[in-house]
Amino acid sequence: MTTTNLDLQSLTQVAGKLFSEVEQNDLLIGDFCYQLAEHLFPICRSLTGKGTRHTLSILKSLLPDLQTHSVPSGTAAFDWTIPEEWNIREAYIEDENGSRLIDFAENNLHIMGYSEPVDVWLDLPELQNHLHSLPDMPDAIPYITSYYARNWGVCLTDNQRTKLKEGKYHAVIDSTLEPGVLNYGDILIAGDSDEEVLLSTYICHPSMANNELSGPVVATALALWLQSLNKRRFTYRFVFIPETIGSIVYLSKNYQHMKERTIAGYNLTCLGDNRAYSFLPSRAGNTISDKVAKHVLKHVDQDYLEYSWFDRGSDERQYCAPGIDLPVASIMRSKYGEYPEYHTSMDDLSLISPAGLQGGFCALQKAIQIIELDDYPKVTVLGEPQLGKRGLYPSTSTRDTRKTVADMMNTISLCDGEHSILDIAERLQKPFDDINEILTMMKEAELIQY
Amino acid sequence: MTTTNLDLQSLTQVAGKLFSEVEQNDLLIGDFCYQLAEHLFPICRSLTGKGTRHTLSILKSLLPDLQTHSVPSGTAAFDWTIPEEWNIREAYIEDENGSRLIDFAENNLHIMGYSEPVDVWLDLPELQNHLHSLPDMPDAIPYITSYYARNWGVCLTDNQRTKLKEGKYHAVIDSTLEPGVLNYGDILIAGDSDEEVLLSTYICHPSMANNELSGPVVATALALWLQSLNKRRFTYRFVFIPETIGSIVYLSKNYQHMKERTIAGYNLTCLGDNRAYSFLPSRAGNTISDKVAKHVLKHVDQDYLEYSWFDRGSDERQYCAPGIDLPVASIMRSKYGEYPEYHTSMDDLSLISPAGLQGGFCALQKAIQIIELDDYPKVTVLGEPQLGKRGLYPSTSTRDTRKTVADMMNTISLCDGEHSILDIAERLQKPFDDINEILTMMKEAELIQY
Amino acid sequence: MTTTNLDLQSLTQVAGKLFSEVEQNDLLIGDFCYQLAEHLFPICRSLTGKGTRHTLSILKSLLPDLQTHSVPSGTAAFDWTIPEEWNIREAYIEDENGSRLIDFAENNLHIMGYSEPVDVWLDLPELQNHLHSLPDMPDAIPYITSYYARNWGVCLTDNQRTKLKEGKYHAVIDSTLEPGVLNYGDILIAGDSDEEVLLSTYICHPSMANNELSGPVVATALALWLQSLNKRRFTYRFVFIPETIGSIVYLSKNYQHMKERTIAGYNLTCLGDNRAYSFLPSRAGNTISDKVAKHVLKHVDQDYLEYSWFDRGSDERQYCAPGIDLPVASIMRSKYGEYPEYHTSMDDLSLISPAGLQGGFCALQKAIQIIELDDYPKVTVLGEPQLGKRGLYPSTSTRDTRKTVADMMNTISLCDGEHSILDIAERLQKPFDDINEILTMMKEAELIQY
Repeated sequence: MTTTNLDLQSLTQVAGKLFSEVEQNDLLIGDFCYQLAEHLFPICRSLTGKGTRHTLSILKSLLPDLQTHSVPSGTAAFDWTIPEEWNIREAYIEDENGSRLIDFAENNLHIMGYSEPVDVWLDLPELQNHLHSLPDMPDAIPYITSYYARNWGVCLTDNQRTKLKEGKYHAVIDSTLEPGVLNYGDILIAGDSDEEVLLSTYICHPSMANNELSGPVVATALALWLQSLNKRRFTYRFVFIPETIGSIVYLSKNYQHMKERTIAGYNLTCLGDNRAYSFLPSRAGNTISDKVAKHVLKHVDQDYLEYSWFDRGSDERQYCAPGIDLPVASIMRSKYGEYPEYHTSMDDLSLISPAGLQGGFCALQKAIQIIELDDYPKVTVLGEPQLGKRGLYPSTSTRDTRKTVADMMNTISLCDGEHSILDIAERLQKPFDDINEILTMMKEAELIQY
Repeated sequence: MTTTNLDLQSLTQVAGKLFSEVEQNDLLIGDFCYQLAEHLFPICRSLTGKGTRHTLSILKSLLPDLQTHSVPSGTAAFDWTIPEEWNIREAYIEDENGSRLIDFAENNLHIMGYSEPVDVWLDLPELQNHLHSLPDMPDAIPYITSYYARNWGVCLTDNQRTKLKEGKYHAVIDSTLEPGVLNYGDILIAGDSDEEVLLSTYICHPSMANNELSGPVVATALALWLQSLNKRRFTYRFVFIPETIGSIVYLSKNYQHMKERTIAGYNLTCLGDNRAYSFLPSRAGNTISDKVAKHVLKHVDQDYLEYSWFDRGSDERQYCAPGIDLPVASIMRSKYGEYPEYHTSMDDLSLISPAGLQGGFCALQKAIQIIELDDYPKVTVLGEPQLGKRGLYPSTSTRDTRKTVADMMNTISLCDGEHSILDIAERLQKPFDDINEILTMMKEAELIQY
Repeated sequence: MTTTNLDLQSLTQVAGKLFSEVEQNDLLIGDFCYQLAEHLFPICRSLTGKGTRHTLSILKSLLPDLQTHSVPSGTAAFDWTIPEEWNIREAYIEDENGSRLIDFAENNLHIMGYSEPVDVWLDLPELQNHLHSLPDMPDAIPYITSYYARNWGVCLTDNQRTKLKEGKYHAVIDSTLEPGVLNYGDILIAGDSDEEVLLSTYICHPSMANNELSGPVVATALALWLQSLNKRRFTYRFVFIPETIGSIVYLSKNYQHMKERTIAGYNLTCLGDNRAYSFLPSRAGNTISDKVAKHVLKHVDQDYLEYSWFDRGSDERQYCAPGIDLPVASIMRSKYGEYPEYHTSMDDLSLISPAGLQGGFCALQKAIQIIELDDYPKVTVLGEPQLGKRGLYPSTSTRDTRKTVADMMNTISLCDGEHSILDIAERLQKPFDDINEILTMMKEAELIQY
């Protein structure tokens, strides 16, 4: 990292001018994302509760137009009901000597999400029924939740667990499970068209980094970038929700509007490590979101990993459900469920990096740029145009100069109003930008219209 | 074989309760089929004649609802005319000493089908013009016919033929070729819908086993099974005909009705040996019959042999002819023309087996079950359903439990009313039954409707 | 070659009876093409000028119905303007001693096409700015033009160039660049239908042989052949034009008529060497021209080279341009740009051969024959026809005779009015002629109609 760490207030000031053309600053996008992740990391988030509200308030300090919403526990949403709100003050396991062996204050993964309150003494065998560890990853604390069945649990490293001796243990979870609210935020960044691009991410994971803080921080950077543009062709809908129940609630309130307007979309998740690029398709598999994502990833990393719909596992499950059918795909770095540190304490700030986040941001930014620019160019003349008289063709024809105009002529040959710019790029096996550059030049020369 | 051989009367009694749920018996389907084949094997069948009528009368004793039909010689059927009826009492070749060297009584393949009557003395060279043998299979008698050109012939092993010495031979064929009838049978097993599934087999081959007695005996078992069901979704049309001329006659009388009603169908042939599974497509190649057959065979035997339309050779030639266009494919064991014993005396009862016939029966039964059950399920809720509140989801979410619900959720994700159950099974690369089991459970939970 | 070389007058007399059935002659098509190329080779052709008019007048002596046209310099055609007419009388480079080192009289490739007149003394470094040679082919004179930017140039072998010493050189090009005309020819050979097949070739290349004299000479032979037929199903439009500007001019005058009428077409180029067969698709890629060309080439040479639209480089660029969209593909021997001698003095009469030209002619002839004959046959009977009663089926059925009728029956099985003859040939992986022969026999037997 080339920049010093900024406190949250300074980071907020930076956010406003991150993409400004007038005021340059030395904070790269990846650095900004990483530093924001550092500030958000310690907060104990869950489907509901103070941690999620705290997270939304920080995001709103960076994105003042963010609208926050709350829906009461017990509210029905499609097939689901919003659960009670969960909050936790402290939790620990003490031995008979009063030594705290496991302490929520040290790592908020230590307590199973949505654990009910408890204050009991147990024998080790009784305690074991409530312990979760990973024998094959003895230094990692697993991330476990029990949202819809009342229970309590303590997660610890397998090394910690195997050291527990026979005896009495004091298990204390000072939590509340009470009627409250589910919180989420959204922000609409208006464009020339009221057709929308959906960008959705989730804010329900406690202290983990790739899955999941990378999504919200890259979403924040993308929103800042889109706000900084003079104009946008499409309207952008950013959604910050708890996973699954949040997208269900969000869709139950907005899906008819979204079905009418959404032309493309991505679920933003797992965008922070620097080991791989991954793609997960929409349910339909052939939407513009899918085509653009595959084009971008192919040119960013020809070895990118292409998963199937049956490998899905995030909010595309709701956005693409039968009857909802939004065109939502996923561009990721290392995909959830596919890297060893996934859903453990080892998915921490050392797993992600400014470079990893920058890569995730840039892939999404490129996809959005293509969606903004894609169109159906049509040549304005019959027969091949004479590039020469427009100063676009080398005047001496030799064997060698023939190749230099091939890209131009191949591009023009596909400008029949039936191939999109993306189609042309795919046919010519070139990056979208190369073809767009040629077309922009041709459009200025009035050889192409769209 | 685990059962003792039954006489025909006992076999008939068994047939009535073969699939009964109340009266169990130890005769496996394959045993039943094999024993029926044993009874039918010695009969000299041809396109027409007493042998075919005898065969139909035995089948009618097992399937009392079988309707038998006769159509006079000389009747026109599409491009064809029903030939004269052929019957044969005895036939032999004697040498000058009156020794019978070749005798029809020993094997009815010895006389070319439709041989005209003859009673002549010939020199060996003259006799040779009427002999048929297989030098590359010196112990096999070939199966030869001459239905539409008057001729006579004697078929013998090449070992028999090479022993013939110079001299006079007495050739006697005591046959008749006279105006008579062509016989066939059919049976309609009614279902809830008057849409029909066609199951056609042929009864014109003399003493051969895989091609062809396996077809009629498996057809009989399938008819007994379908009759034993409380209800059927579709109506089943079983057709027992002489090959080619029989299907032409049958179609000429029924094709308009069949074109309107037939939603699927199979030609039942070569279902008795235990060496391979084979598939031959309909002419269209993409009918429900084709899709179901390929799905079934893939899960029965991943090495099943897939032939092309251009390898066809049985009644699908008529059922799929241009203008007829019925959706008729073939599920077989070793396909006609593709195994060494085909159309010789070596295609005898030792080539087929109860296990081979059982395998053929089960593949067809599974195909019919899929045709009966296939439908277009549609999820009843928007967004993913909450399996938990219906007791279908493990209440604690860990890394490991995620996989256990994947099949359920993947299946639901395709219940959009546009994927059939078979489509879903194919997309998920699972057997139809696995998906159907999930869907049945979901349907009971009212998560799915169809 | 089996024939003696003929003077132009004798060749013209031969042309009239080349395909006559009554008067046989021993001049093979390839010999005829080659000898015509020999007569045309020395002429200095360009986009415009006397050489092109001379060429057209020779072609007209062979094809008296050829219509010749002229369009004035400065005339607009789509995006282009017809350039001034270029003529050249003599040109050379002399050294200080008056020795002619380079002389247009020796090879008309020595002077860059469309060189402006010049008569100057230069130092070697100044001269070098106007010289073109090929260091990697030191014995070859490159073919260079500068049609649309005023310039002059001298092309020479690299061996000649490296021998030039310091000193003064006298460069003389006695050319004219003045308002004149662009010339082209066309000929319409009427058929029963006014639907047209376009056959276009170009006459703007100076002394080169494969690219390009092979196109005009094979085009001439094809026109003579089509004229010799008693009747033709389609009308044939032969076009002899300068490349690019010529097709643009031709289209600007005729494209609406051509769009309405043209059902197939080929650009005739590079048809003379005997090293390879090549295919270049139309822009659409799936027209009848494409399908027929690929079928023909596959059966002529299974190793034929298949290029992509993005390898194009001749008049298909205009014929297939967006908005023009004619179904024009290319059948070639060694393709332009893909053989070492391309656009150099080594593409001379030794590179092409009677055998090479004959091969090119025959591939095009076969393609035209298929276009003439292709149709949608439909069987006239329901069910399989009885070949036997029509004398088309062996009367004794044995294992061996089954295969002999397979081609007939497979063909009939596809005569559903939805497969063309070409489709059937492709499905059965047989040459078109084999299937057409079967169908002709069936049509005579009234089993098939079309």
